[in-house]
Amino acid sequence: MLRVDPDRLRADFDALAAIGGTAAGGVNRPTFGDAHLAARAWFLERAAAAGLEAHVDAAGNHSAVLPAAAAGAPTLLLGSHLDSVLDGGRFDGGLGVVAALEALRTVQDARLELPVALEAIDFTDEEGTLVGLLGSWAVTGALSPEVLRAPRGGRDALLAGLARVGLAEERLADARREPGSLAGYLELHIEQGPVLERKGVEIGIVTGIVGSRSFRIRFAGAAAHAGTTPMDVRRDAGLGAAAFVVGVRELVVRAYPGAVATVGNIRLEPGGFNVVPGLAHLALEFRSPDAAQLDALEAALVALAHGLADAHGLEVEIEPVGRWEPTSLDPAVRAAIERAAGALGLSTLELPSGAGHDAQALAAVTPSGMIFVPSRGGVSHRPDEYTAWEDCVNGANVLLGAALELGSSECPFQQ
Amino acid sequence: MLRVDPDRLRADFDALAAIGGTAAGGVNRPTFGDAHLAARAWFLERAAAAGLEAHVDAAGNHSAVLPAAAAGAPTLLLGSHLDSVLDGGRFDGGLGVVAALEALRTVQDARLELPVALEAIDFTDEEGTLVGLLGSWAVTGALSPEVLRAPRGGRDALLAGLARVGLAEERLADARREPGSLAGYLELHIEQGPVLERKGVEIGIVTGIVGSRSFRIRFAGAAAHAGTTPMDVRRDAGLGAAAFVVGVRELVVRAYPGAVATVGNIRLEPGGFNVVPGLAHLALEFRSPDAAQLDALEAALVALAHGLADAHGLEVEIEPVGRWEPTSLDPAVRAAIERAAGALGLSTLELPSGAGHDAQALAAVTPSGMIFVPSRGGVSHRPDEYTAWEDCVNGANVLLGAALELGSSECPFQQ
Repeated sequence: MLRVDPDRLRADFDALAAIGGTAAGGVNRPTFGDAHLAARAWFLERAAAAGLEAHVDAAGNHSAVLPAAAAGAPTLLLGSHLDSVLDGGRFDGGLGVVAALEALRTVQDARLELPVALEAIDFTDEEGTLVGLLGSWAVTGALSPEVLRAPRGGRDALLAGLARVGLAEERLADARREPGSLAGYLELHIEQGPVLERKGVEIGIVTGIVGSRSFRIRFAGAAAHAGTTPMDVRRDAGLGAAAFVVGVRELVVRAYPGAVATVGNIRLEPGGFNVVPGLAHLALEFRSPDAAQLDALEAALVALAHGLADAHGLEVEIEPVGRWEPTSLDPAVRAAIERAAGALGLSTLELPSGAGHDAQALAAVTPSGMIFVPSRGGVSHRPDEYTAWEDCVNGANVLLGAALELGSSECPFQQ
Repeated sequence: MLRVDPDRLRADFDALAAIGGTAAGGVNRPTFGDAHLAARAWFLERAAAAGLEAHVDAAGNHSAVLPAAAAGAPTLLLGSHLDSVLDGGRFDGGLGVVAALEALRTVQDARLELPVALEAIDFTDEEGTLVGLLGSWAVTGALSPEVLRAPRGGRDALLAGLARVGLAEERLADARREPGSLAGYLELHIEQGPVLERKGVEIGIVTGIVGSRSFRIRFAGAAAHAGTTPMDVRRDAGLGAAAFVVGVRELVVRAYPGAVATVGNIRLEPGGFNVVPGLAHLALEFRSPDAAQLDALEAALVALAHGLADAHGLEVEIEPVGRWEPTSLDPAVRAAIERAAGALGLSTLELPSGAGHDAQALAAVTPSGMIFVPSRGGVSHRPDEYTAWEDCVNGANVLLGAALELGSSECPFQQ
């Protein structure tokens, strides 16, 4: 049974982690910064050193390609991303890219002739320094002009970033691939949550990527003197906000299994020791793998906010901020991952991904799957993000095994 | 029965409100700013124009004095303050000073010979731009070097302010009056709360000034990814903080009648939509007229914070920030106010003051009392602070009446 070379994988992983490496042990590689560009250049050098074809598309996605035996064969994509959040960890994204590269080298070394091309791909700006999923949306043809007009990192930063690397906004769409040219997409990634570690499971098979919705909520009461205003005549916006935070958790835990909801920020005005707050601003986000559950949860949360506003003599305004639909990952790909893990004697668990990934873009156009390996303490987007090296190697071998099964036929999903 | 001249009082009130007057209808007279100094100069000019003695002491307190018939007689103080909070209202402080001046003029015009001197006094920095109750603490001899070393507005601002008006820090204590030289203290002030208006009462007789304690409370949990961290493994500091806010109100309303407690500010870290908060910082303040109730409430609030921290898997730190003891106002003075109001046919209500006043300093050395008039909507420290003019005149007449009763004997409290 074919396995990756763990030493070669480790050497790549360590070399990559040193690019933009921070004193705290993480990496700082925001999109199109010096460290990010250095990591991408290193990736193409490693591909060339292995005798693979190197390629950069109109959205800046970087690829190493192992061609198929026959011309015109479809391509099985294996990938992730080399950009990081500010002061992030070394495993998020980077592990998936070096494992994809190692899978190609392993197939090449074994002189296997597959009916598909294998492509290790580093997608541009997954984390959203500029847009979020920029490269993967471009590949699927779903990068909308609306998103580019008001990107997450700001319009100026996007234009400056594209100019810095010689990309043209009007040509980003040229990165689109014909769905018929793709045989599928596989991504190895750290879980970024605590579930696998807590359950003692080695491999996570991702069932889908949760949808999320976010809202700004504003409770308005009346600012008042904290000494002279009796409790029974107050219209305390901070109290309404606090009751909402408590109620959100109670609601989700009681009636929405598998969903999560978070009030990540609260700001009170005027915000002094001796003034009853007149205004409270909250940041609410909730996620679920199920669109119907998201709808029901949204309705319940809106009703909760209005009910608490009424109960506390407040006004409430609810403003939608963001919305991502849930994505299901392909059952046949999940089954291939399950078999690959089983052949290696690894325990598995099906679970949704609570975080966004390039796979949610690819899933719209080609059969896609994700492999998770455990995150210590569930920590991610921090320098102390950590996955045991044995788990990394396990993940790379499952990626290789699933790719070999899916790549053993030109049309693995039509058998 | 002697009454103040409402037109003369109104002319003074309006002239004063124009000094530092804001477009929104309030006043902006922070301590030792141009507008504050102009208001004080105007006050001495009005005193001199009335033929009263004008006087400024070593703490900058400004006075108009109507001497007693006999030399060496004690002085009955009537006063309040001419400084304001930033962008405050025209009634807070100013009403009490112009009413005191009008009371002296009324006695003078009636050619009454009293066995006490009457002194209308404007205390320095009541609101705390620099120190808070600076002038009144100095008069009582209670202005401590500790407070002056770390004043509320900062040491540099205090020194610069004193220098600006030619006061010397080391001479502030010279403003102290011998308690035997004082016959008492009376202050007319707006309520700054909604109680009189809500109950339809014309005159408030202040029983005492509440004590207050303030604390910074910090809940510490673990920042975590809002998508990948299931609800049951979170250590959400924001949730603990919210449960505390809800619990504080429930506790006070249920078991501490007459007390108030306020969480005036909440700050979460890191504070994004998609991160479970790891830290929550709260500003807590509570007040009661009763020292034993303050002790019990403090113990209950500390226990609440620790209990909620345990229940939510958090750590909690509780740091004391401020502490003012409650002050009782003199029963004989309260009775004199009651009789003065009754003689005018005005309805009265005994109530504590939830806000601090110069009377809380004076009460330590001389029999002191306060007269409240209704604040529309309970609003204060804002440009829309408002008291009906009829209520202002009522308050001035009660001040005059109580002063005449208390000033009709050299030792009114030893009869």
